This record gives sequence, structure tokens and C-alpha cells, in this order.
Amino acid sequence: MAAIGAMPEIGGFRQKSRRSFVTLILTVLTSSQSILIVWSKRAGKYEYSVTTANFLVEALKCALSLVALLRIWRKDGVTDDNRLSTTWDEVKVYPIPAALYLVKNLLQYYIFAYVDAPGYQILKNLNIISTGILYQIILKRKLTEIQWAAFILLCAGCTTAQLNPSSDHVLQAPLQGWVMAIVMALLSGFAGVYTEAIIKKRPSRNINVQNFWLYVFGMIFNAFAIMTQDFDAVMNDGFFHGYSLITVLMILNHALSGIAVSMVMKYADNIVKVYSTSVAMLLTAVVSVFLFGFHLSLAFFLGSTVVSVAIYLHSTSKSRR
Amino acid sequence: MAAIGAMPEIGGFRQKSRRSFVTLILTVLTSSQSILIVWSKRAGKYEYSVTTANFLVEALKCALSLVALLRIWRKDGVTDDNRLSTTWDEVKVYPIPAALYLVKNLLQYYIFAYVDAPGYQILKNLNIISTGILYQIILKRKLTEIQWAAFILLCAGCTTAQLNPSSDHVLQAPLQGWVMAIVMALLSGFAGVYTEAIIKKRPSRNINVQNFWLYVFGMIFNAFAIMTQDFDAVMNDGFFHGYSLITVLMILNHALSGIAVSMVMKYADNIVKVYSTSVAMLLTAVVSVFLFGFHLSLAFFLGSTVVSVAIYLHSTSKSRR
Repeated sequence: MAAIGAMPEIGGFRQKSRRSFVTLILTVLTSSQSILIVWSKRAGKYEYSVTTANFLVEALKCALSLVALLRIWRKDGVTDDNRLSTTWDEVKVYPIPAALYLVKNLLQYYIFAYVDAPGYQILKNLNIISTGILYQIILKRKLTEIQWAAFILLCAGCTTAQLNPSSDHVLQAPLQGWVMAIVMALLSGFAGVYTEAIIKKRPSRNINVQNFWLYVFGMIFNAFAIMTQDFDAVMNDGFFHGYSLITVLMILNHALSGIAVSMVMKYADNIVKVYSTSVAMLLTAVVSVFLFGFHLSLAFFLGSTVVSVAIYLHSTSKSRR
Repeated sequence: MAAIGAMPEIGGFRQKSRRSFVTLILTVLTSSQSILIVWSKRAGKYEYSVTTANFLVEALKCALSLVALLRIWRKDGVTDDNRLSTTWDEVKVYPIPAALYLVKNLLQYYIFAYVDAPGYQILKNLNIISTGILYQIILKRKLTEIQWAAFILLCAGCTTAQLNPSSDHVLQAPLQGWVMAIVMALLSGFAGVYTEAIIKKRPSRNINVQNFWLYVFGMIFNAFAIMTQDFDAVMNDGFFHGYSLITVLMILNHALSGIAVSMVMKYADNIVKVYSTSVAMLLTAVVSVFLFGFHLSLAFFLGSTVVSVAIYLHSTSKSRR
């Protein structure tokens, strides 16, 4: 993993504007994702099986990566950097993030025995801290003290913005709930940071090839999830049972945001990803005021203020790149 | 006001340790103040008239300043810096802070027509921002960008720590309530910063003489308040009607914290004062858990985290002194 962090600055400005562009796209996709979820909840309960939808997301991402590659091959021809064929040495680490996500998603079923859903929303903010810690350890890139202060503020601000009258219940959650939440945060942080490590290890390798292989393993692991969890339902009611227009939109959105996350990992990093998804959370709340007549709480304003200061501090703190 | 900010560094270390000492004393006194208030509320409603208590606080501060001066005169003799007699030029600005506080306290009676008590607690945090703005304008000392970020965090963090299920009502407060809260924050910020300006204008002048004259005007303005607000009650029931042990303790505490505030103005500044009273607010909550069996909310933990980061940022940001 010695080559990580040695990402060359190929054209500073182009690099920077591409980084801003993919970050913006990720923010917009993530916020519309939450809005689709609210919309689908209003439309009624999920009728489709979540595992089949997840499988389709991976398959769609795979297909989109292939389409992008076809265009690149037509334009530039097949080179060492953009050929699809790979070596065991390159591909052997690709199943790891998919496996980590699978374990995390399985744990998700059990944590609700100890923590209620709003409490879980609160605890999910631990992801921010775990990502920061694992980013330093695995990618060996140091965050400055100010950047750490900003990251702690980001976590506190996001949690504050999500506070509601029942949030305090989480403080009474049993130890098992907290331990599981921390383990899940570490798994998800590790998966994110490890994906960045894989993608950045070969900076010149085309991102679409890297994505293709990541998503192939995503498909395999999700096929496994269908078989263990929803095999009977799929066999009896069919693969697409309960799908609606909104299901299709959600699958499309998840696929596109998945690709955007990969792009952010390639051209920026996990820290930028965390900021982007946090801003998306705030954006969602503001948009929901107009779309669904939601009310913004004082806690939301305070949390947003803290998140804004965190972003300011992170951006002014001198970069270590 | 040209001499302000030219405070000489008389023995850097002694200066710094004195600054830390008075800040610590202020923090402890302010937190015990709030605890006395909670205690007195538990003991029942205020039976005494608040204006007479305020008058006694000023009188006690005056007396304590005189006692301190007597000891100094006995030790060092009477010099130009510690003599009690003064000039019109020195003393003419001294009534201004007392007058500002009087106007602010009068407004306090009217704001409750528009804002409830928990809402007022929330709005009082605007003091933090107004102090920062007026500190820059009146004392012409620049806060760095990081220090401003820290100050905004301090305000957001304190407000978050005070959140309770009814806090959102403040968002529905009418415009008049907000305007009055902002005016009160400006008056209180102006009084604080102006006191610092007065005290720092003559750095070599003994603080006890400066305090003595400040408190003389405090007594005069509070005598005026007794006459306009509580004249009948004092005439019918007597000056000390309804006083109890706790009233005496509160008067003692207010007098000592008043002197501590002056010391912080002399040896540190209004910014330090605001941090000190904010930390006192958090300390009070923690101590109340043990004393009164209060519960700490998730919002309190989040707010305390944000305040801690604010203090860290303020202290690491390079000082402009």
C-alpha cells in the first residue's frame, strides 16, 4: 500500500474542477435519494424485496461502466490502463469492500433489537468519526488538527440537525446497541476507505475498469444476499414483484450516486465524500420544507450553522496534498 | 480612545497567570450563581424585591473595593495611580455602562410580552455575537477568522446545550420579540465592551479605584430603579422584606462575580469573559445532575462538544496581542 497517497497532480486546475464537479453531483444525487425515500414512504410501504433492488443497482452500475468503457475504447483504443482484463494481483482485494458492506447490512437487522429507528439515525453519525480515524490509519494521510476539529464539528452538527424530541432515547440504549453501532460505523468506514485505497493504488488505471470489477463483486455478494434472505419470495412472487415507478427511480438514483462516490474516491477522497453526504442531508431537509411541508427546527438551524463552520474550517485549513 | 489596546505587557508570565486566575474565579462564581438561582427557585418564589438586592450588590462591591484600596494604601502609600480622587475627564464616561444596563433591565420586563422564558434563555445567546461585533468595532481589536468561527460555534454550542422540547417556540416569536432581543444583546454587549474600554484606557490606574467609581454609579442607577419600581413595597414592607439566607448568599455571589468580571476586563478581555460564562453554564448543568438529579440531554452533550471545539480553536488560533 506504499503507492497510496502518491497520486500525481495531473493538471492542477483540471484536477480541481473535476473534483468539485463530482462532489457537486454526489451531493445532488444523495439529497434526491433521501427525497425519493420520503416520497416512497408516503406512497406506502416497500412492496418489493430490497435485496433484488440492491442487486439491480450493482448490475446497472456494471452496465454503465461498460458503456463508458465502450465509448473510451472507440475514442482512444484499448490501452494497458483501460483494458477490462485484469490480473489476480489487481483484483484480489476488490471483494473486500463488498464483503464488508454485506456484513454491515446483516448487522443492521440485529441492531434494531436494541436501538429504535430515530436512535439509529443518530448513531449513524459515528460513521463520520470512524471514517476520519480509518482514513488516517489506512491511507496514512494526516488530517491537520484544525481538520480534525472540523470533522468533530461535522459529526456534532449533523447529529444536532437531526435532533427530535425522541432523540434522547438513544442515551438509554443498552451497551450492545452502542457496540453494534460502533462496529457498523467501523465496517462502513473501513469499506469506504478501503475502496479509496484500491482505486488510488493504480492512479493511471481507468476508473470505469476499477468500478466494473468493484461492481461485479457487488453483484455476486448481492446475489448471495437474495438467496439467503429472499429466495422464497423471489421464487413465489417473481423477481420484480412490487416494483413501481418510484422503485425504478430509486434504483437509477442509487446506481448513479454509487458511481459518483467512486469518482469522488478517485479524484478527491473519503473526507470530501463525508462532507458531501452531510451537506446533502441538510439540503434534503430544506427541499422537504417546500416539497412536503416539513418544518425546520431550531436544532436544524444550529446544526447547519455548525456544519457550515466545519466546512469553512476544513477548506481554509492548509491542504496536506 | 486611542490609548486602548496599548496595554503594556508587564511581566508576561505574571500577566498570563493572573489572567488565568481571574478567569477561573469568574467561571466558578458564575456557575455557583446559577446553582443558587435554581436552589432559590426550589425554595419558593422570590419574596424580596430584586431592585433592593441589586442595590446591595453594588454597595457591597463598592465596600469591597474600598477595603482592597485601604490595604494597598497601607502597603504602598497613596500614589497617582491608586488615589480615590478623580477628575471629570476620567469619571465622565463611568455612568454609561450603568445606564446601558438599566435600559436593558427595563426592556427585560417588556420582552416577555412577546417571548416566553425558555425562548428568552435561547435568545440571550445573541449576546455572544453582539459582544464579538462590538469588541471589534469599539476596542478596534481584530478577531482572526478562526476566532470568529470559534465565536459563532460558541453561540451555536451554548444554544444547542440549552435546547429543550419547547425551544422551537422561539422561532414563532413575533418580529418585535426578535428586535427587542437583538437590541438587548447590543445594549448588554455595548455595556460590557465599553466597561473594558474605560478600564483599559488607563492601564496603570488601580483596578479598585476604577471599580469604586463604576460601582458608585451602579448604586445611583439602582437607587433610581428602586424608586421607580419598588418604592411602595419598600415603604410598606421595609427594605429587607423577604430576605433569607439564600438571598444573602446570592447578593454575596453577585458582588464577587461582578468584581471578577472587572478583573477579567482589566487583565483579559470581553472575549475571555464570554468563554468563561459559557463554560460556567455547562458546568452548572453538570453539577446540577449531582445536586438536583437533573438529566443531561443528547443536545447538551452535542452543545458541550461544539463549545469545547470552539475553546480549542480560540486558544490555538494565534493571538493578536
